[in-house]
Amino acid sequence: MRDMNATPAQVREKIRRGMITGQTAGMCNGFAQANLCVLPREYAYDFLLFSQRNPAPCPILEVSDPGDRLLHMIAKDADIATDFPKYRIYLDGVLSEEVTDASPFWRDDLVSFLIGCSFSFEGELLAAGIPVRHIEEGKNVPMFLTNIPCQSAGIFHGNMVVSMRPMPADQVVRAVNATASMPKVHGAPVHIGDPEKIGISDIQCPDFGDAVTVYPGEVPVFWPCGVTPQAAVMAAKPSLAITHAPGHMLITDIPNAALKY
Amino acid sequence: MRDMNATPAQVREKIRRGMITGQTAGMCNGFAQANLCVLPREYAYDFLLFSQRNPAPCPILEVSDPGDRLLHMIAKDADIATDFPKYRIYLDGVLSEEVTDASPFWRDDLVSFLIGCSFSFEGELLAAGIPVRHIEEGKNVPMFLTNIPCQSAGIFHGNMVVSMRPMPADQVVRAVNATASMPKVHGAPVHIGDPEKIGISDIQCPDFGDAVTVYPGEVPVFWPCGVTPQAAVMAAKPSLAITHAPGHMLITDIPNAALKY
Repeated sequence: MRDMNATPAQVREKIRRGMITGQTAGMCNGFAQANLCVLPREYAYDFLLFSQRNPAPCPILEVSDPGDRLLHMIAKDADIATDFPKYRIYLDGVLSEEVTDASPFWRDDLVSFLIGCSFSFEGELLAAGIPVRHIEEGKNVPMFLTNIPCQSAGIFHGNMVVSMRPMPADQVVRAVNATASMPKVHGAPVHIGDPEKIGISDIQCPDFGDAVTVYPGEVPVFWPCGVTPQAAVMAAKPSLAITHAPGHMLITDIPNAALKY
Repeated sequence: MRDMNATPAQVREKIRRGMITGQTAGMCNGFAQANLCVLPREYAYDFLLFSQRNPAPCPILEVSDPGDRLLHMIAKDADIATDFPKYRIYLDGVLSEEVTDASPFWRDDLVSFLIGCSFSFEGELLAAGIPVRHIEEGKNVPMFLTNIPCQSAGIFHGNMVVSMRPMPADQVVRAVNATASMPKVHGAPVHIGDPEKIGISDIQCPDFGDAVTVYPGEVPVFWPCGVTPQAAVMAAKPSLAITHAPGHMLITDIPNAALKY
């Protein structure tokens, strides 16, 4: 059973000890969670440049020094190799295995990228009185490949992946404003309305995640999604990449509200 | 005489031809201007990481591919090596010469960093009805070394440099809000009030730029300053660095208003 009053540091310690290995959605409500992408140093400049050129789908919260397993900014004394509940190990772009402890794979040349997550702005939407459909329906958010090109950087390139949240038209402006002030967690929507304009043919067939109900008259609203950099990394087939398993994130010490400008 | 209706592309062409070699303050009013730092590829990752860790003093607008002299995002077909009115060439951290054309120094391994400039948010302050003292007095903005440490990245480290604009207390909140929405050009102030709190002993003795009048009862407001990354680069003594000469910037195609979130 979850202790709703546990601090992020307490939850990270339980995860480190293997006492929590499941998804982190809803844990430590109000604190930002982070995605992970770990790459050998040889790929780090291209990936950092990709994130600089595409900050909306790839908002970087912290970058480790090469070989450093500890975080210093977004979570005090967090161990990157053990404090996510589950990791994915990719070799040459192919999923090799899922593990709950990435320590055996750590190397002195690994650079860790901690990336902002839409959980943070969903809290903001709920706080603004805007219901979030996939949360209501107990599903994963629907995500779609678009025809919106990212700016390439070295070996990394690809189109943007977006997440979709449907809502009545009279909530759209509030949703834009509630998220625009949080660019470190994807910020404002990238598209509002007609899915075909961004290359989505069927709103009921997401490329990732689950389909959700869109009621008659509702407007689909599309946000830049953190799957974008993951897809770009997988397509580039680096010799090694370590990521979090979907939904199994790091719980940071940063309150969501502190991510606002 | 300046043609007040000239487009950024027209002014860049005059600069490229050597017809304009002076400072760019006030040119193409309403369009963002950019600072320049060019480094060999071997230093590029550390510098990009320094900017990622210190986005307020070092907001990157565009990064070139190695060897590429053309800009692709903030100014169409602009030549980085010729479209600034004046450049400074640093060898091992020491100023070697000032030139109006950096082409003879260009190499295939050079990476160009275009950095946002406070000219953009000063336009926003003026538009919000907040007078800017150094503009009123025809001076350069006063800048100070502080005791605020930057996050180090590889070879780059140092304390933050800030610019100071004094104003009556009843304008401060408006000044914060007017600039907070523009993080790509330094964003909100980093400190308001007592200069000693950030290690400044005499507000009338700036470390860079000119002293300006501070009237009795006025509050000094301090913003992160683009001299910060320049100082960090000079201290690291890279074998080669090319920067713009102070005040001699690139005029971009980006309206200041488009830099807002």
